[in-house]
Amino acid sequence: MAVIGLERKVKVAEVALRCLVCGLGALAAALVATGSQTRTFFSLERKARYTDMKALVLLVAAQGAAAGYSLLQAARCVATMARRRGGGSGSGVMGSRSRAAAWCVFSFDQAVAYVLMAATAAALQSSLLGKRGQLELQWMGICDLYGAFCRRVGEGLACAVASGLAAVLLAALSAFNLFRLYDGGKSSSSSYSTGNGNGATW
Amino acid sequence: MAVIGLERKVKVAEVALRCLVCGLGALAAALVATGSQTRTFFSLERKARYTDMKALVLLVAAQGAAAGYSLLQAARCVATMARRRGGGSGSGVMGSRSRAAAWCVFSFDQAVAYVLMAATAAALQSSLLGKRGQLELQWMGICDLYGAFCRRVGEGLACAVASGLAAVLLAALSAFNLFRLYDGGKSSSSSYSTGNGNGATW
Repeated sequence: MAVIGLERKVKVAEVALRCLVCGLGALAAALVATGSQTRTFFSLERKARYTDMKALVLLVAAQGAAAGYSLLQAARCVATMARRRGGGSGSGVMGSRSRAAAWCVFSFDQAVAYVLMAATAAALQSSLLGKRGQLELQWMGICDLYGAFCRRVGEGLACAVASGLAAVLLAALSAFNLFRLYDGGKSSSSSYSTGNGNGATW
Repeated sequence: MAVIGLERKVKVAEVALRCLVCGLGALAAALVATGSQTRTFFSLERKARYTDMKALVLLVAAQGAAAGYSLLQAARCVATMARRRGGGSGSGVMGSRSRAAAWCVFSFDQAVAYVLMAATAAALQSSLLGKRGQLELQWMGICDLYGAFCRRVGEGLACAVASGLAAVLLAALSAFNLFRLYDGGKSSSSSYSTGNGNGATW
């Protein structure tokens, strides 16, 4: 019974983290993508948009894709919990099938975490260059001219960082879920039945 | 016996990956940090160095630290293998102590992988800006002027990407090692002794 309680807590934490990644990712993408500011210099009109920086375009795409993926995965988790509560297929599920599915989820979760971290780091770097410029290369900062746009991108980046951290936690949880399942089906009857209790020394 | 063979193969793969991260990380840091090019414009001398870009400084620091950490960890792995072959402490090691050590190694390996990916992504983004410039912001590329320096940084970045990918593989291996150990000590006697065989459904 205690094991089923733990199982349920892990599943609830997983759904909460997936919803967090989805919400923050969508918010980050929306904030960055909808931010723009127009300034007029003499008679010349100039508009700052996220498409002016490739790293921000990559961030919007990565956060949008991660939000969509997280929404689908959260729905799958909720459906699994509802089926279990309703006494559905239960113990009749084939071990190899759930293991293959777990490998898929683990791989995608890891990929999402790394892609979000990389895209966010690249966007942060670009935005810092945009804010401060780089005098050694004669690159001027643009935030003195486009303050409102820079603030909007900054808010989006804060959401992106939070979303990336949630994805990292989710990837760790996903690894825990996978290897627990994997060991339970196969190794627990071989590696751990040796009576050693220290299958691997560190 | 087959389990011990697998154990050994996993350990050898771990040492190989740690050496790879160490070698590639050190090479990446050395290539980027030692690259410089001086050009004279009329009577004005101008030198391009990696310190001109904060992202490259971050990359050198991250790759250097990762190389040092990987070297220490590889030495620890080799020492553990040698002790086991020599019939050292063996099964007398306390489970809780090795589990705490495994958590440390897992946490550091995950952190190294994420930091390397983030630092490499930021450096790649900066370098692409340095190569192509960003016309919308009136930022000019510098690789037409400093070709040799850009090529050197490019080689360093290639090593950094390879080092980052090896660190990601290592993080996955480290997660596998940790959760296998964790489950073997605790959950295998509770979760998997229920006779269900499907501790978690996916």
